Amino acid sequence: MRAVDIILNKRSGKELSPDEIRFLIAGYTAGDIPDYQMSAWAMAVFFRGMNAEETAALTGAMLHSGEVMDLSGIPGPFVDKHSTGGVGDKTSLILAPLAASLGIRDPMMSGRALGHTGGTLDKLEAIPGFRTSLGPAEFREILAKNGFAMTGQTKDIVPADRLLYALRDVTGTVESIPLITASILSKKKAEGAQALVLDVKYGSGAFMKDPADGEKLARSLVDTGKAMGMRIIALLTAMDEPLGNKMGNFLEVEESMDCLEGKGLDGAEGPADLLEVTLELAARMAVLGGKAEDSAGGRRLCEQALKSGKPRELFLAGIKSQGGDPEEFLSMRGNYRSPHSGEVRAARGGFISRIDAFTVGRAGVDLGVGRNRTEDPVCPAAGVEFHLKGGAAVKKGDRIMTVWGKDQAGLSAALPLLEKAVEYSDTAPAPRGLILKEIASA
Amino acid sequence: MRAVDIILNKRSGKELSPDEIRFLIAGYTAGDIPDYQMSAWAMAVFFRGMNAEETAALTGAMLHSGEVMDLSGIPGPFVDKHSTGGVGDKTSLILAPLAASLGIRDPMMSGRALGHTGGTLDKLEAIPGFRTSLGPAEFREILAKNGFAMTGQTKDIVPADRLLYALRDVTGTVESIPLITASILSKKKAEGAQALVLDVKYGSGAFMKDPADGEKLARSLVDTGKAMGMRIIALLTAMDEPLGNKMGNFLEVEESMDCLEGKGLDGAEGPADLLEVTLELAARMAVLGGKAEDSAGGRRLCEQALKSGKPRELFLAGIKSQGGDPEEFLSMRGNYRSPHSGEVRAARGGFISRIDAFTVGRAGVDLGVGRNRTEDPVCPAAGVEFHLKGGAAVKKGDRIMTVWGKDQAGLSAALPLLEKAVEYSDTAPAPRGLILKEIASA
Repeated sequence: MRAVDIILNKRSGKELSPDEIRFLIAGYTAGDIPDYQMSAWAMAVFFRGMNAEETAALTGAMLHSGEVMDLSGIPGPFVDKHSTGGVGDKTSLILAPLAASLGIRDPMMSGRALGHTGGTLDKLEAIPGFRTSLGPAEFREILAKNGFAMTGQTKDIVPADRLLYALRDVTGTVESIPLITASILSKKKAEGAQALVLDVKYGSGAFMKDPADGEKLARSLVDTGKAMGMRIIALLTAMDEPLGNKMGNFLEVEESMDCLEGKGLDGAEGPADLLEVTLELAARMAVLGGKAEDSAGGRRLCEQALKSGKPRELFLAGIKSQGGDPEEFLSMRGNYRSPHSGEVRAARGGFISRIDAFTVGRAGVDLGVGRNRTEDPVCPAAGVEFHLKGGAAVKKGDRIMTVWGKDQAGLSAALPLLEKAVEYSDTAPAPRGLILKEIASA
Repeated sequence: MRAVDIILNKRSGKELSPDEIRFLIAGYTAGDIPDYQMSAWAMAVFFRGMNAEETAALTGAMLHSGEVMDLSGIPGPFVDKHSTGGVGDKTSLILAPLAASLGIRDPMMSGRALGHTGGTLDKLEAIPGFRTSLGPAEFREILAKNGFAMTGQTKDIVPADRLLYALRDVTGTVESIPLITASILSKKKAEGAQALVLDVKYGSGAFMKDPADGEKLARSLVDTGKAMGMRIIALLTAMDEPLGNKMGNFLEVEESMDCLEGKGLDGAEGPADLLEVTLELAARMAVLGGKAEDSAGGRRLCEQALKSGKPRELFLAGIKSQGGDPEEFLSMRGNYRSPHSGEVRAARGGFISRIDAFTVGRAGVDLGVGRNRTEDPVCPAAGVEFHLKGGAAVKKGDRIMTVWGKDQAGLSAALPLLEKAVEYSDTAPAPRGLILKEIASA
């Protein structure tokens, strides 16, 4: 078997055999197949696509390129959530302890902020002392004890994905649905998840701008999951505005605590959009974990759980287990902010029709919330608080955002962007839907 | 400017700017842009194509990646021929002295045999002492003196093509018309050709099996040549049978001498198909060199030239100038053959409908005429003489070919292939056309 023939087969639109796919992934991981052949192959996959069988074979080949988490001896069910990424998207931090409170275990392996999107590991590390590099033994122990554990991907887990993703990033081959599918599912399988809720975001702040593309990805993930013996429910959710009222690493942990304390429930004040998306995702985790018959029942369970205070307690226990001090963390709420601050005020009266998520995310890189290159540091105390969002009536000069930058230069660069992110209208905009669609296997 | 953005632009079907193309080629030649980005880009070009402006910019960028032959002080016109490659295709050896005898100078840079197709350099080197690596000064001197000089491509000429071709060969990106166009034209421009006759072959023994593909390539070459200020006439010629009655390195030099001596002219015995294709190509060289009004007139000039003996004289002078001994060469004609010989005889009676060029070419690799890998040696005294070809009536047992192999093993491997190459019919096959079409700029 030769790599060039596999490239030619894919280029000409042929279906690759499982053997060909395994040869390619094993050879690439071992260093026998060079980057220049893999990138040409990835580009051919971009143009020709892959069917469900090929995508499942690719996922399996990537999964077996490294170690698989051994969760034997820990009672399940193991259900995780994956998001395609967005701005202000902190649902993972709420979902893990919420699902754990229902008796579902969430073996979470997360990533870091890149470009305009945030990363769970950077948020968790904003909690002083919190360790996000857990060895397998410690990961198992914390997962068994608290019902969830939150760690970064180690180099032994799906090494093929680490190599291939870095290559795709610099060769214009990221946006391929089968390659994205295999990347996501191989990692989720490797961490030990038995079922998965997918938050496929669409809109300006999402990876997929068009919901039709999001739906294609969701369908590919659901179908490939099925072929791999993994039950998946996907929700297509809006990412045209930042999710919730806070963006920033510590700010988002703070807002997650607000949700875990039930803020926004039953019409009370709080981040309503964040709570809504979180509850809909949590409801599906409850269904997949066998704790509810349907998502309406799952949602009721989750709302009750939030009111019980149990998820909040589990989140604080998780902080303690992973090296943080819950008391110190609680004392920082509302005041751990960078000294370099500014405001965005309404440029005119009328209504805010939308605060553009992508522009806010880009401003976040200047502020130090995110990063352009994986090796850049982030600032835990930087970010944006939104006092008003899309749909709000404003008078000229009303305070819309408070902004904290890692330094004065970053703040100065971000403020004009954030001003530009605010879109106005003369009449009240139509209320936006947050959950567009549910996609699950038949 | 970033290579990844140029890849993304091409991937999404955008036209690349001349600056983007120059950035890519210059960066790749300098080693700043890695192979894995170039191969992904080449695959995107395979799927998206390039328009005439992009192809001309690519040709120009490749041309200027290295040195350009300085022919100043030598009177022109400089006209060359390029063939897309075939089996038994020795027209270059005849055309160069034939054009020179008309006062046209042919600065020939040729390649080597690879796969089933032959290479001019390997044929020339079958002449004892013949040197195919001429320095620029010697190349100029011989070109000025004899009207033609025959050399291999030096490493300073179009280095981008050498790098890119080697990469395309292992990444499934050879068959892209704009990439092929730029590869051919940049080298022809660099050697100093002002005008070019293209022999675009189609059929089993050609790179392009389908004449429609051949026509697309011819059109791309003609159009890009025009944009580069190079006049080009392309002929689409048949390569379903080997050209001429001899295939092999020394055997083909021998047959070229037969043509240079006028064998086959005016219905006399000789390799009629070879002479026909050669005369039609030569006629276009005469037109492009300003020696004839049209190809009919060019052809008359060329036939007269062959009868005059001048081209034969120039060919022998060329051998002498490049290190060979014309007397020794002439004494080897008809007897420089490998001792490992065999025959192919008719398996049945009837007619030979065709001798398949591709199968003959593959057998040639076993015989030592060609090679599978660029580093393999060839055998000068190996090859096939065809006593009968397509259209001939045969009785069972008639001798169709005499075969010489580099060794007994090669001969034994080739003979069954050569037997399989002969196709029979009960009735006389329709005469085949050799020249399908002429393609020139409007």
